Amino acid sequence: MKRIGILNGPNMNWLGKREPEIYGAVTLPDLEARLKKFAATNGMEALCFQCNSEGELIDKIYAWAQEGICGIVVNPGGLTHTSVSLRDCIAGCGIPTIEVHISNIHKREEFRHRSLLAGVCAGQICGLGIRGYELALLWHASA
Amino acid sequence: MKRIGILNGPNMNWLGKREPEIYGAVTLPDLEARLKKFAATNGMEALCFQCNSEGELIDKIYAWAQEGICGIVVNPGGLTHTSVSLRDCIAGCGIPTIEVHISNIHKREEFRHRSLLAGVCAGQICGLGIRGYELALLWHASA
Amino acid sequence: MKRIGILNGPNMNWLGKREPEIYGAVTLPDLEARLKKFAATNGMEALCFQCNSEGELIDKIYAWAQEGICGIVVNPGGLTHTSVSLRDCIAGCGIPTIEVHISNIHKREEFRHRSLLAGVCAGQICGLGIRGYELALLWHASA
Amino acid sequence: MKRIGILNGPNMNWLGKREPEIYGAVTLPDLEARLKKFAATNGMEALCFQCNSEGELIDKIYAWAQEGICGIVVNPGGLTHTSVSLRDCIAGCGIPTIEVHISNIHKREEFRHRSLLAGVCAGQICGLGIRGYELALLWHASA
Amino acid sequence: MKRIGILNGPNMNWLGKREPEIYGAVTLPDLEARLKKFAATNGMEALCFQCNSEGELIDKIYAWAQEGICGIVVNPGGLTHTSVSLRDCIAGCGIPTIEVHISNIHKREEFRHRSLLAGVCAGQICGLGIRGYELALLWHASA
Amino acid sequence: MKRIGILNGPNMNWLGKREPEIYGAVTLPDLEARLKKFAATNGMEALCFQCNSEGELIDKIYAWAQEGICGIVVNPGGLTHTSVSLRDCIAGCGIPTIEVHISNIHKREEFRHRSLLAGVCAGQICGLGIRGYELALLWHASA
Amino acid sequence: MKRIGILNGPNMNWLGKREPEIYGAVTLPDLEARLKKFAATNGMEALCFQCNSEGELIDKIYAWAQEGICGIVVNPGGLTHTSVSLRDCIAGCGIPTIEVHISNIHKREEFRHRSLLAGVCAGQICGLGIRGYELALLWHASA
Amino acid sequence: MKRIGILNGPNMNWLGKREPEIYGAVTLPDLEARLKKFAATNGMEALCFQCNSEGELIDKIYAWAQEGICGIVVNPGGLTHTSVSLRDCIAGCGIPTIEVHISNIHKREEFRHRSLLAGVCAGQICGLGIRGYELALLWHASA
Amino acid sequence: MKRIGILNGPNMNWLGKREPEIYGAVTLPDLEARLKKFAATNGMEALCFQCNSEGELIDKIYAWAQEGICGIVVNPGGLTHTSVSLRDCIAGCGIPTIEVHISNIHKREEFRHRSLLAGVCAGQICGLGIRGYELALLWHASA
Amino acid sequence: MKRIGILNGPNMNWLGKREPEIYGAVTLPDLEARLKKFAATNGMEALCFQCNSEGELIDKIYAWAQEGICGIVVNPGGLTHTSVSLRDCIAGCGIPTIEVHISNIHKREEFRHRSLLAGVCAGQICGLGIRGYELALLWHASA
Amino acid sequence: MKRIGILNGPNMNWLGKREPEIYGAVTLPDLEARLKKFAATNGMEALCFQCNSEGELIDKIYAWAQEGICGIVVNPGGLTHTSVSLRDCIAGCGIPTIEVHISNIHKREEFRHRSLLAGVCAGQICGLGIRGYELALLWHASA
Amino acid sequence: MKRIGILNGPNMNWLGKREPEIYGAVTLPDLEARLKKFAATNGMEALCFQCNSEGELIDKIYAWAQEGICGIVVNPGGLTHTSVSLRDCIAGCGIPTIEVHISNIHKREEFRHRSLLAGVCAGQICGLGIRGYELALLWHASA
Repeated sequence: MKRIGILNGPNMNWLGKREPEIYGAVTLPDLEARLKKFAATNGMEALCFQCNSEGELIDKIYAWAQEGICGIVVNPGGLTHTSVSLRDCIAGCGIPTIEVHISNIHKREEFRHRSLLAGVCAGQICGLGIRGYELALLWHASA
Repeated sequence: MKRIGILNGPNMNWLGKREPEIYGAVTLPDLEARLKKFAATNGMEALCFQCNSEGELIDKIYAWAQEGICGIVVNPGGLTHTSVSLRDCIAGCGIPTIEVHISNIHKREEFRHRSLLAGVCAGQICGLGIRGYELALLWHASA
Repeated sequence: MKRIGILNGPNMNWLGKREPEIYGAVTLPDLEARLKKFAATNGMEALCFQCNSEGELIDKIYAWAQEGICGIVVNPGGLTHTSVSLRDCIAGCGIPTIEVHISNIHKREEFRHRSLLAGVCAGQICGLGIRGYELALLWHASA
Repeated sequence: MKRIGILNGPNMNWLGKREPEIYGAVTLPDLEARLKKFAATNGMEALCFQCNSEGELIDKIYAWAQEGICGIVVNPGGLTHTSVSLRDCIAGCGIPTIEVHISNIHKREEFRHRSLLAGVCAGQICGLGIRGYELALLWHASA
Repeated sequence: MKRIGILNGPNMNWLGKREPEIYGAVTLPDLEARLKKFAATNGMEALCFQCNSEGELIDKIYAWAQEGICGIVVNPGGLTHTSVSLRDCIAGCGIPTIEVHISNIHKREEFRHRSLLAGVCAGQICGLGIRGYELALLWHASA
Repeated sequence: MKRIGILNGPNMNWLGKREPEIYGAVTLPDLEARLKKFAATNGMEALCFQCNSEGELIDKIYAWAQEGICGIVVNPGGLTHTSVSLRDCIAGCGIPTIEVHISNIHKREEFRHRSLLAGVCAGQICGLGIRGYELALLWHASA
Repeated sequence: MKRIGILNGPNMNWLGKREPEIYGAVTLPDLEARLKKFAATNGMEALCFQCNSEGELIDKIYAWAQEGICGIVVNPGGLTHTSVSLRDCIAGCGIPTIEVHISNIHKREEFRHRSLLAGVCAGQICGLGIRGYELALLWHASA
Repeated sequence: MKRIGILNGPNMNWLGKREPEIYGAVTLPDLEARLKKFAATNGMEALCFQCNSEGELIDKIYAWAQEGICGIVVNPGGLTHTSVSLRDCIAGCGIPTIEVHISNIHKREEFRHRSLLAGVCAGQICGLGIRGYELALLWHASA
Repeated sequence: MKRIGILNGPNMNWLGKREPEIYGAVTLPDLEARLKKFAATNGMEALCFQCNSEGELIDKIYAWAQEGICGIVVNPGGLTHTSVSLRDCIAGCGIPTIEVHISNIHKREEFRHRSLLAGVCAGQICGLGIRGYELALLWHASA
Repeated sequence: MKRIGILNGPNMNWLGKREPEIYGAVTLPDLEARLKKFAATNGMEALCFQCNSEGELIDKIYAWAQEGICGIVVNPGGLTHTSVSLRDCIAGCGIPTIEVHISNIHKREEFRHRSLLAGVCAGQICGLGIRGYELALLWHASA
Repeated sequence: MKRIGILNGPNMNWLGKREPEIYGAVTLPDLEARLKKFAATNGMEALCFQCNSEGELIDKIYAWAQEGICGIVVNPGGLTHTSVSLRDCIAGCGIPTIEVHISNIHKREEFRHRSLLAGVCAGQICGLGIRGYELALLWHASA
Repeated sequence: MKRIGILNGPNMNWLGKREPEIYGAVTLPDLEARLKKFAATNGMEALCFQCNSEGELIDKIYAWAQEGICGIVVNPGGLTHTSVSLRDCIAGCGIPTIEVHISNIHKREEFRHRSLLAGVCAGQICGLGIRGYELALLWHASA
């Protein structure tokens, strides 16, 4: 059974409370429960992790790499635009990764249009709400 | 039954023949057949159109708008980066649209990283191969 | 009697339906009828053409040039910001041309502030609604 | 009867003498007389003011605002490209304003292409010679 | 009684030892003691936290948000210029925040002139030494 | 008794009338009366001056310098972003100066984010409303 | 016998009439006749096509590709600087292509100095008048 | 006898007091006296004017133009980098003008390296102290 | 005996596994053992620390500063290009530091060419493989 | 008989040995012999000169100008992108010059796309290998 | 007696022949003779050197430095905009240097507006023709 | 025995005399003697060459290449930032090269931060004084 790591970056712990007009009203525990169930329905196991620290996110990816997961879905939050280290980690660990954004980053501030990570991910999905995580899982299912 | 327009822009007629190491070996007729079938399986009807001309693509969108389709999946090809007119059309017709790119545009030339259309689409999927069209259809199915 | 060509570019066919808070509720047929009448009142004949294709717009300008019209009023739509070819055509045909925009392009997205065509037109009018077309006609009347 | 303020900025006092190949041979007193007459013919009263100082131009706008004029036509001269203060004044006074340039600023030096004021004006007319002032008055007449 | 969180970012633990010609000779414990006392004198309670890690700073803000504090004074140190995540956190938690810099960032290296956080804070005070923290507290007192 | 000059630049005469959603409803005379009283309460004398002209603002600073004032609080309005001359004057007169903005300039247009004056002032306070003037006075009181 | 496609883009139909001080007095029919003859003299067959529409130019290239031509000489006109789609087509069809400009684009407006197509062509010839087409044909003859 | 206007812009009234390590210890009255004498010695009459206001400087140039002076030496102070209006005035009045800077502007802040006026002056002298004014007068003497 | 701190930043824990064509096959434990031995041979003690978190790296530098080490060799990984906080820490702690990169950063992506840290380090060595660490140690030995 | 100077700049002495996958295997003596022969066949005399020094290349052009040659073919090597002096020399000597590059500079590093010399040459040929020199000679033959 | 070195850079050997509408009709030997005489009249000895090679110009400056000259007047020609080496030489030799340009570089191409050398020279004179050299000598006479 | 070429570019002849606070007091002959000795001690032969001319430096590299040296240490002086020709030469000759700078270029003017050569060298050492040359030699010894 394929195991897929779902990584949520800074401020995703506040999902549902933070700017709901942008991110919706679902909370992080809700989201993670839904994704675990969705993964199971599609024959995969979803491992979930959220953290506000760049360093711990990187540690987790390497830990997952050693446990042999076969795919990552990452919503890097604000680190999308600032973290060369996370980029190097995704490039370095060699695990196919899809970057997901709940909102359409191209409708927001200029500095959110560009992702430092997208160039080392397999692909990117943005603007499709939390449904975007599920579509990313489906891609891993058929990859 | 939801009707979804699938619009392929310039050079997509050459799919399968053009730079297959980037775009894969599936041809446009293959792709359109596969998507029509996939749409049907998911309770939708897919209308397909490909054209190398910006003006005709815009004409088609307005024609579809008058026929009352309820969603668009667009791979604008090179027009992604150059067409304000296509952007204005998508914004103007008011139909939810998802932009799809077969390749990961963020791994290619600098001028391909930025889309003039993304800011008026509901969302964007890139790098997931022709599977990206199917995921976009799934989003429309559940939107 | 002076004959003036009135050229409307991409998406102007959708006038009245497209983003009416920006462009107003008058449709293209209404607009063209009004301008023909206004031209007649001011001793001119207005020829009207709308098209979503850059190439056909250029073809029309050359056709008009061969028919000997003596002025152009152009609302290039999204081509304003992207078409070197249209610019070259206006410069090349030698007919005095006024660029008109219904909305004030300087109040909108940054990429709309700059016109590739303005430098080869006689002048530019923007932000004055469809009244801008009439003022442009008046200028041609007295030029 | 509508009263419209016509404001000419720095160096317009030298009109007719200054670079006539660009600005023509009409002097400022000629221009103001012509515009007053044109306004009267169209049922409006034109108030004219020229000054080389940014501060006094701003003072005049506020004075006019207190006198209850209902429209402004402004040729800001060199301040077009440098005066945030004039921009703030036009935005702050709340009077519909049209920016006019005698020459086509898009045919001149790069730094003249961009106006700091256009974004807070109702619209902009450029390149139509002193006829541009009259067209702006006509717009106010029908606004 | 109003409770205000005072957050000091990276390198503020070295205050008094680090480049005293820029930051002065007061140490962090001195500063925090002084601010607690100043807050008390002005009818508020000051909660103090310093940390060199972006992630822990974000964690603390959410912890404070859940404890119901009503204002934040933040000196983000080097994160001022690099942390989109901290920006998102301040925007997300909904607590009025004032950004404070001991030195005048506009007198220093070019890259220090721009703050990624200022756009989501209520305001910014810089260059007024550690007195800046006190003025920020006064603002919270009267807000 | 310390004398502090309070200088308000272009458009501040329209305070209370101009864009009250940004600047509030207090008028300039109200503001100046309030600051004079606040200064007196804190053992200082406030001298107030407002003007829309860059040149007269500079003249006033030099006049104050010759009268021996010991501090300046300046809200330069639109000159913040355009006046090298005012910058040179503040640098040249040698009087400690604090730049104040009622609104948070970092939440507004891009061109308002950068101040030409901040680099020669002691510090800057923005976004704290007219309370910002008072905090600046308090800093002078304790400087 | 080698067959070479000679493609002329927007506004080339106006050759001889359009800005003759830049482009010379030879008309398009003259040019095409001359090139067909020149090709024949050098043992090649020249196929000529001119069009003002990006989409039709792309269609023609693919049509030629299917007919098995072995080289292209293209003067893309204004599309040189704006057409990613034409670039993708040339890259995609795999036929060796030389870009030709009659005038020296480096002596003209800044925006004409850069070609979006040059990077996917075999080479570029500019400034050598209509002789440039012939030199391009000679290169194909010996390639 | 040649009459030359010597125009000093903003902050030059403070010469000798303002940043003497940059500008030296000579005051403006000293400077003007010295230049008048130097001019007389070289068979010219020097007219001197200093003002902190852009508008009045422009007024003075036009006044001098009407009096028939035959040359200008201008130290525009901070307006060097910000005044399109002064630039237009110098271009418009048609009097040969030399721009002088006491300090070497290329050794100072980046924004001082570029002069908006230099392109319409006959030439520029910088870094040669107040001797620069005299050398400019000598040039007028022999022009 | 001189004690030198050797600090490895994010992703260096994956050395030997991560992109070995760029970074080589030596693992971090191998590298640290080799450097400790090399340091001892050259009369120094090497203290080694690796971490993926910016905050902990800063904490470690201050801890080392309090223990009185006399030099640092740092390979900041991705933080090289993004961390103002690490820069401030190195500037603030006052310990001579050499920045080392295993690969030649100037042969890689554009965003890797510029280091935010180099300006506060004593010097930089890049492209010389893990030998670069040893050369940095030699410099400390003779500094 | 027309005499044409063929000038090869820095590193062309290493032709055939230097990066043969870019520049081919022909050596400079081979190239020069071939061009002399080709010129003779076409009724011209080719003078050849190669040098690694900007100054000597300029000296040679002036020497040739005094000898009355009537055309130049120049491959400026790396000086293409850096030598204003060579540009000034070509502009100054008044001899029609064609710039030739063996490789397609638009397929290489960004900084090679722009030529400082092209704007003063008659035209430019790039990407056509050493055949480009011959085509340039043919142009001179018929110019 | 003061000895002053007069250094003319690339292409100045062609003075009088090269673009006389920009540089005038005086030849280099004429100019040098005139300057030697002018220097003598003002109690100085002028040493003259012209060369097209950056390296030899640098060699000459160091040779002059060892001979103990006390001032330099340099017209660096095209090296003005490209030579960091010449800049370093002027900074390194410690001899007061004035940069002279015959034409007004601010009226020419954009890339000529900026001098790499001006920041290490005492001052700069441009646009005053060959009279500029004499004014520079006068400055050295009185320095 | 390995032979290593040590190449010093423009202005290095003035080492010890030129800005000693930046470059130290050691002269070039001292430096070269020290490096020859150091090389010998480490089993290599050092060949030394200094020159102020780009062309001769390139000539020397090719001469060394023909003599079969196996490594280069180059301090390109001001050419670091301006010489594409030297870059091409290093890339073309195929000899492993290390770029050395005595001072830390990242602490100096902005234009010194970027090296045109670094991208074709094996690596770069800067800021470590003349010790940097020795470390570069050590690298060659063990390469």
